[in-house]
Amino acid sequence: MEEREILEKVKSGDISIESALRELKTKPFKDIDFAKIDLQRKLRTGAGEVIYGSGKTPNQIIKIIDTMLENGQKNILITRLSKESAEKIKDSFELKYFEDAKVAIFGEFMKASGLGKIVVATGGTSDIPVAEEAALTAEFLGNEVIRLYDVGVAGLHRLLAHIDELTDASVVIAIAGMEGALASVIGGLVEAPVIAVPTSVGYGASLNGVAALLSMLNSCASGVSVVNIDNGFGAGFLANRINHMEEKK
Amino acid sequence: MEEREILEKVKSGDISIESALRELKTKPFKDIDFAKIDLQRKLRTGAGEVIYGSGKTPNQIIKIIDTMLENGQKNILITRLSKESAEKIKDSFELKYFEDAKVAIFGEFMKASGLGKIVVATGGTSDIPVAEEAALTAEFLGNEVIRLYDVGVAGLHRLLAHIDELTDASVVIAIAGMEGALASVIGGLVEAPVIAVPTSVGYGASLNGVAALLSMLNSCASGVSVVNIDNGFGAGFLANRINHMEEKK
Amino acid sequence: MEEREILEKVKSGDISIESALRELKTKPFKDIDFAKIDLQRKLRTGAGEVIYGSGKTPNQIIKIIDTMLENGQKNILITRLSKESAEKIKDSFELKYFEDAKVAIFGEFMKASGLGKIVVATGGTSDIPVAEEAALTAEFLGNEVIRLYDVGVAGLHRLLAHIDELTDASVVIAIAGMEGALASVIGGLVEAPVIAVPTSVGYGASLNGVAALLSMLNSCASGVSVVNIDNGFGAGFLANRINHMEEKK
Amino acid sequence: MEEREILEKVKSGDISIESALRELKTKPFKDIDFAKIDLQRKLRTGAGEVIYGSGKTPNQIIKIIDTMLENGQKNILITRLSKESAEKIKDSFELKYFEDAKVAIFGEFMKASGLGKIVVATGGTSDIPVAEEAALTAEFLGNEVIRLYDVGVAGLHRLLAHIDELTDASVVIAIAGMEGALASVIGGLVEAPVIAVPTSVGYGASLNGVAALLSMLNSCASGVSVVNIDNGFGAGFLANRINHMEEKK
Amino acid sequence: MEEREILEKVKSGDISIESALRELKTKPFKDIDFAKIDLQRKLRTGAGEVIYGSGKTPNQIIKIIDTMLENGQKNILITRLSKESAEKIKDSFELKYFEDAKVAIFGEFMKASGLGKIVVATGGTSDIPVAEEAALTAEFLGNEVIRLYDVGVAGLHRLLAHIDELTDASVVIAIAGMEGALASVIGGLVEAPVIAVPTSVGYGASLNGVAALLSMLNSCASGVSVVNIDNGFGAGFLANRINHMEEKK
Amino acid sequence: MEEREILEKVKSGDISIESALRELKTKPFKDIDFAKIDLQRKLRTGAGEVIYGSGKTPNQIIKIIDTMLENGQKNILITRLSKESAEKIKDSFELKYFEDAKVAIFGEFMKASGLGKIVVATGGTSDIPVAEEAALTAEFLGNEVIRLYDVGVAGLHRLLAHIDELTDASVVIAIAGMEGALASVIGGLVEAPVIAVPTSVGYGASLNGVAALLSMLNSCASGVSVVNIDNGFGAGFLANRINHMEEKK
Amino acid sequence: MEEREILEKVKSGDISIESALRELKTKPFKDIDFAKIDLQRKLRTGAGEVIYGSGKTPNQIIKIIDTMLENGQKNILITRLSKESAEKIKDSFELKYFEDAKVAIFGEFMKASGLGKIVVATGGTSDIPVAEEAALTAEFLGNEVIRLYDVGVAGLHRLLAHIDELTDASVVIAIAGMEGALASVIGGLVEAPVIAVPTSVGYGASLNGVAALLSMLNSCASGVSVVNIDNGFGAGFLANRINHMEEKK
Amino acid sequence: MEEREILEKVKSGDISIESALRELKTKPFKDIDFAKIDLQRKLRTGAGEVIYGSGKTPNQIIKIIDTMLENGQKNILITRLSKESAEKIKDSFELKYFEDAKVAIFGEFMKASGLGKIVVATGGTSDIPVAEEAALTAEFLGNEVIRLYDVGVAGLHRLLAHIDELTDASVVIAIAGMEGALASVIGGLVEAPVIAVPTSVGYGASLNGVAALLSMLNSCASGVSVVNIDNGFGAGFLANRINHMEEKK
Repeated sequence: MEEREILEKVKSGDISIESALRELKTKPFKDIDFAKIDLQRKLRTGAGEVIYGSGKTPNQIIKIIDTMLENGQKNILITRLSKESAEKIKDSFELKYFEDAKVAIFGEFMKASGLGKIVVATGGTSDIPVAEEAALTAEFLGNEVIRLYDVGVAGLHRLLAHIDELTDASVVIAIAGMEGALASVIGGLVEAPVIAVPTSVGYGASLNGVAALLSMLNSCASGVSVVNIDNGFGAGFLANRINHMEEKK
Repeated sequence: MEEREILEKVKSGDISIESALRELKTKPFKDIDFAKIDLQRKLRTGAGEVIYGSGKTPNQIIKIIDTMLENGQKNILITRLSKESAEKIKDSFELKYFEDAKVAIFGEFMKASGLGKIVVATGGTSDIPVAEEAALTAEFLGNEVIRLYDVGVAGLHRLLAHIDELTDASVVIAIAGMEGALASVIGGLVEAPVIAVPTSVGYGASLNGVAALLSMLNSCASGVSVVNIDNGFGAGFLANRINHMEEKK
Repeated sequence: MEEREILEKVKSGDISIESALRELKTKPFKDIDFAKIDLQRKLRTGAGEVIYGSGKTPNQIIKIIDTMLENGQKNILITRLSKESAEKIKDSFELKYFEDAKVAIFGEFMKASGLGKIVVATGGTSDIPVAEEAALTAEFLGNEVIRLYDVGVAGLHRLLAHIDELTDASVVIAIAGMEGALASVIGGLVEAPVIAVPTSVGYGASLNGVAALLSMLNSCASGVSVVNIDNGFGAGFLANRINHMEEKK
Repeated sequence: MEEREILEKVKSGDISIESALRELKTKPFKDIDFAKIDLQRKLRTGAGEVIYGSGKTPNQIIKIIDTMLENGQKNILITRLSKESAEKIKDSFELKYFEDAKVAIFGEFMKASGLGKIVVATGGTSDIPVAEEAALTAEFLGNEVIRLYDVGVAGLHRLLAHIDELTDASVVIAIAGMEGALASVIGGLVEAPVIAVPTSVGYGASLNGVAALLSMLNSCASGVSVVNIDNGFGAGFLANRINHMEEKK
Repeated sequence: MEEREILEKVKSGDISIESALRELKTKPFKDIDFAKIDLQRKLRTGAGEVIYGSGKTPNQIIKIIDTMLENGQKNILITRLSKESAEKIKDSFELKYFEDAKVAIFGEFMKASGLGKIVVATGGTSDIPVAEEAALTAEFLGNEVIRLYDVGVAGLHRLLAHIDELTDASVVIAIAGMEGALASVIGGLVEAPVIAVPTSVGYGASLNGVAALLSMLNSCASGVSVVNIDNGFGAGFLANRINHMEEKK
Repeated sequence: MEEREILEKVKSGDISIESALRELKTKPFKDIDFAKIDLQRKLRTGAGEVIYGSGKTPNQIIKIIDTMLENGQKNILITRLSKESAEKIKDSFELKYFEDAKVAIFGEFMKASGLGKIVVATGGTSDIPVAEEAALTAEFLGNEVIRLYDVGVAGLHRLLAHIDELTDASVVIAIAGMEGALASVIGGLVEAPVIAVPTSVGYGASLNGVAALLSMLNSCASGVSVVNIDNGFGAGFLANRINHMEEKK
Repeated sequence: MEEREILEKVKSGDISIESALRELKTKPFKDIDFAKIDLQRKLRTGAGEVIYGSGKTPNQIIKIIDTMLENGQKNILITRLSKESAEKIKDSFELKYFEDAKVAIFGEFMKASGLGKIVVATGGTSDIPVAEEAALTAEFLGNEVIRLYDVGVAGLHRLLAHIDELTDASVVIAIAGMEGALASVIGGLVEAPVIAVPTSVGYGASLNGVAALLSMLNSCASGVSVVNIDNGFGAGFLANRINHMEEKK
Repeated sequence: MEEREILEKVKSGDISIESALRELKTKPFKDIDFAKIDLQRKLRTGAGEVIYGSGKTPNQIIKIIDTMLENGQKNILITRLSKESAEKIKDSFELKYFEDAKVAIFGEFMKASGLGKIVVATGGTSDIPVAEEAALTAEFLGNEVIRLYDVGVAGLHRLLAHIDELTDASVVIAIAGMEGALASVIGGLVEAPVIAVPTSVGYGASLNGVAALLSMLNSCASGVSVVNIDNGFGAGFLANRINHMEEKK
């Protein structure tokens, strides 16, 4: 019941003041609920929902998928899903499973749209699992993705060979472990927003990704922001948001 | 000389092969220069350039401004400029100085444009200097900015009272010290990209902003990315980029 | 023998000064023992004792339980007890084992008493094992517990939907990993003391719970205090103490 | 207007549905405000409000005091107030200033009430400023406070000499720098909740209070929780809450 | 009154049981007091007491000295005393002030005794203030001290030139900043216990002495133990204890 | 085609300006490629290439070796190769596998050349795997290597017994875990550049090699530089570069 | 040949100057060896040598024991020896293996001597393995050891009940994880040198023993020094040295 | 006296066996002294000595210079010398003072020699003081230095424009704060050894140079080694050593 409706029913005597009070008492947060749903409605129209698979049993995930399907969801992305869990879920649903990225898709990728292409670049080959999580997330949410893997700054020519893709991108996701310099170099080359993802690739003083994280936070290039270590999903999700920016009011 | 021009002159015999070689020898990096300049040309059309004032003497800054003016620059933003330096530079140029933000403007703010409004929100009043650096940067680069200061999560109603401005924003900059929870709460409320800025506000276990930084990097809300501690300029600059996203090719 | 008794026997000549001296020589620390036992007597009346199971073999635990039973203990709580150990102990005693919380109960939960209800809230589902350790500890010690799980700040409406339970609580235990913002948000909403428990849930820059810990220590809300990472027992134990506060002299 | 009042006026036709809607539209957050205000009403009855002085100019503080006085506030606590600021504010208001604690009181301390006495204990004399912030906060909010200063564990007899005050306390605030062992020792001696406050007293490997903080978080005694380094106010505020616990519903 | 005395007076009726009880009630901790005083009596016989000067005003120190004198103390060591404070105290007492070490002596150094000589060695000249604090403490407490300054491992010959003094020492205090290697090298050369003191000398990755501290804790030489960064007093105090070891029982 | 060739063909009309432009368009980065290849040509003449084996499957490595062989590579070094992977690769190629160092060689070690000998010294026997990675890398790249293992500073005589080898070396690689003092001591004894390699050998406060790393960075000896923890390959590679220094222009 | 002998033979013409030179050429480090051997001779008289077992294969250890036996060693201590390794070595030698401590003894413990008894105290039962390593090391080297286990400060009476053993000890080894307060409390109670051993016992903010380490380094009690986390051997070794102090020259 | 000389004098009876013994007793370390002096003789021939000025008073430095002059030293480099100290020393000696670098030269720079040129490159202008310390050190020791300042990776074209100087260098010193990516990028471009110097330039998460330090240690480019934060002198000193490598034996 909307507030006006409640008031009208009070006026008409259709409901008691007590009932109206009870109804209104829970409204503040219901109001926010509606706001939330509004926000998410656009994404949901024919689109995808995400399940964070880590720490959930196959059965729990199956139950969540069931509920989503009942609510009209058609396409679902599951991240951080182990191969074993994926196998078990496949007994119940048809999943496309991407082993490198530990990502599974139920249903379809959204049709690519948005302002332009998203480039996902990595410093080395060991960063690819994180990159694939980012790329698949962005593709699932409806973006064209260009993968530039193993273009780390120790061999600058490998990166510069792709300067056209980089300068044409609407968003660049720069993924690197070790010293994480890739984000700064790309940040200096492109106009697009750069989302930097430090990875836990490395050893010794890489401190499980903290070295790359600090490096990226201190990037001398403007236009670079950072997400958590190994957070490919977060980068892909944010890149999609930016690539689908549209005029507001 | 463009490459085609060089080639044509070689063909026509206007220049020797030696001259052409010398010309081309320096091109690889000039090419990138041109790319860079291309990228920046748009920003420059009637627009602004930025000087990072920290660690520069007033005289150095005066010289840089002079050079910029000679190159046709009309509007200049100077960040991290102490009041004393600003006073000295005012002897040479007409500056608007914003003491809180330690920011100075030569010339004019760009006319506000972009996809929508940028909200700059802070957890407390002590975060305002960082927020003003962000807000003034965004305004200088041509964005409408809404300031929501002192809306920290300890008094959630203060934040929720502004839910309309938040959900209407095209980009939100969430600035907070201490526990930095503001970024997560806003990240859960809005659809827009959220740029989180940890500040060094706090004491003891805030570790000069590291607590807020870690908190923001671990945000349980998607769509949040982080810049360096106290980096208001970086957030404002990136927000401008995102707010001016446009179709690519 | 109490001191008075010793003195009276000395006076009456029932014991020699030498015997009295020997008796008294060991008193300083027995006195403190008595003090301790005094303190704990109230808890023990029909109530429970706790065994910290981690690093103890099943046999050691069985021996401790035996001793407790001999001393009239009827109800025993065992924390951090692996499933394997629990199985082995079950051969000797009838235990209720709670797998999620790794908690076992011998005997009965105390009848719920105290000033009010204890709310145990978590940011996510992965925090539930820590939350159950807290909740079961509080219940074992005689408190009514309300569980509010997965009410993290990224979806504020989930939390606000329970504002009545929160504001009615006598103590709130706020449990969260990642950015740990839950403690601050709850701290700003309720009048009751808030015990914050950071968890090791998260990855990368969560640094195994250090990010949440720092966040909670820096909470901008007053009335919040913090226990060790994943220390559900400590929170439940302290909550019980606070919920059973009574007038002192 | 309370909601019931609005509804009754709607029913009686005293206000239009439009007016009622406008009135209710601003309610969600007022509701929370009201909740907050409800919670705080008890404290305010003849009681005190707190201003965090750090980072505020004398003028800002004077303005805040003015506003509070206009709203009927009679007693105000100001923490982290420098001597210089206090001097300037004294030109406008009559303040009691406590230099050690950097705390000022406008008006009166609340009459001591609560379940019992609050003991504020410190390891050394250098911890006294933090202790006084805690003690004065608790006294201002209406608690009887017993100060046990310089009772650090290196001279255990100093602490044990006060075992009666400790075991009689309703809440103990244990304040220590360096190795912070005081909290554990007291935690093992008393039944009351112990609020541990690490201080930045020490040098070298004390890491500005981090050593004491970690020590207190790892306390082997149950019933101990921790606040931020040097956060005397937080401890005093929480101790007051616990000392004024009363039955709920 | 000793316990036996109390008992005898009870037996003889000289005191009531009530008085005896009151007397005994405070004994547990008084007993420990007596123990403490026993322990310290030996040191005090014609010997010295120590005041930690840091964070104490000249007036406070003067008052402490007064009390000590009244209690028959003749020789007093004051550590971490600024030159300014020393000057003010000199108006009241005759002090010997050692500026480098920030140490003052009232009265006399104890006559050197003990099992042998204490060597105080430093890596560089910048470590001398810490070394002097150690050396003067040991001398004050009655030890012969040999100073070997600036014998850091980068010039091994400087250290080896003193191998006789080192191997003859009963205790060696090894003081070094930067990489702190001195402790390991000396630990491998001598049979005596080595007390390692990391100093805050250095810059950058010395992290204010943490590098030297970690280095010393990981010493590959046996027989090395470590005190806090810059804690010359602690090393001198402990060296005195070891140099005065004697048969027990 | 070299640039001159393109220009000459343009002049002679052998290629169109369009073709020349296309050719030149990709030159900027090819130029750098050529530069790189130039640099590496010397190494490659009859010499070796390196594969970083960690995180690569046997199949991937086999494919890389195949490609290298096709490109005329004759000798290949593979680092961080597990025994299992080595076994599998041996089915396809003849490898010499060094289990301690986890290094494999395809083909031959280069003939030893360079300015002098490279000494690889370790503090203990547990550092040998890292040392062997360094030594084999240097040998593979054509250097004479002298191994001085287990010459840690706790037994200085073990190190000094080899002073001749040390002072005669052209480069010294100093490898140590725990307190890492070896680098400083050697740095003080020799004139040659010293490359320090901290290892993760140790426990507790060695923090997985961070203690040794900090120690080495703070070396009081000049002429010492540091590589990442356990980075034997990096040290061997750099030592080879230095040992093969020759006059430039 | 001793130097004097060489010189006399040169003088008498029994050896040529060339032979003497060759003999002397190797002396510098033999001299140091002799010094070392001198130092260790006392220990060796019917006494023990130590093998650090961690990272050594059973075969390597067997070879070392063989060599020691050939050199007349009769009693050998092996630390950090896994049960599996011990089993294998038992095929070759008769070992006493102490599983808790991971320590093995070949031959006999030395007859207890020294100035007094060494007390080994632990905070909890989980610290016992480290304590046993310390105790067995001290016993092996010829000391009487008193074990006081599980006397942590959370139950102060447990510690105070043993005040006689503590004050009678010639050296106290205080072993504790978690908050490590035991070292400070004991340091305040006894006159003997206290060797503090932090352990990795604990979880969360114990940071694998770093919390206890920092706590112990900051001990407010004088006379306390610290060894590496879990370094029971180091503490036992140093305690033996101190307990066997004797007059020097 | 050389050993042979001693032996001959013993044989001839020119010295007693006692004198010879005394002479030989101190030889082990004198031998090393000689070695040291040998090593340094080459540098000293007409060359320079270095004084580390930090923490030394002007008077101390004057005295050291005096001693050096007496020993025939003609050219002296003083690092980390404040302007004030330099002014005072100028009263006694003629100094060239370089304010930026805080470096002073007495006498002359050595004539440039070595294998090639040393390039000193910085990421930004704020790194110049560290760079000048490196450059002046290298120049003083006799090297030609090329300065490439402000060529940070955020503007890659600035760096690439100098690719010729970089590839021609015999040693490159890469100096950068913030994210320190310069070292990796240069390391990937050049064949020469790269000495990386992290600087404390930056703010927030740069952690006073630790971010740059970690970044450089994790460089994905081979041939890079690292010195302490801000250690320009160390880099210049090592670069000189490498640039003066010559054949050994």
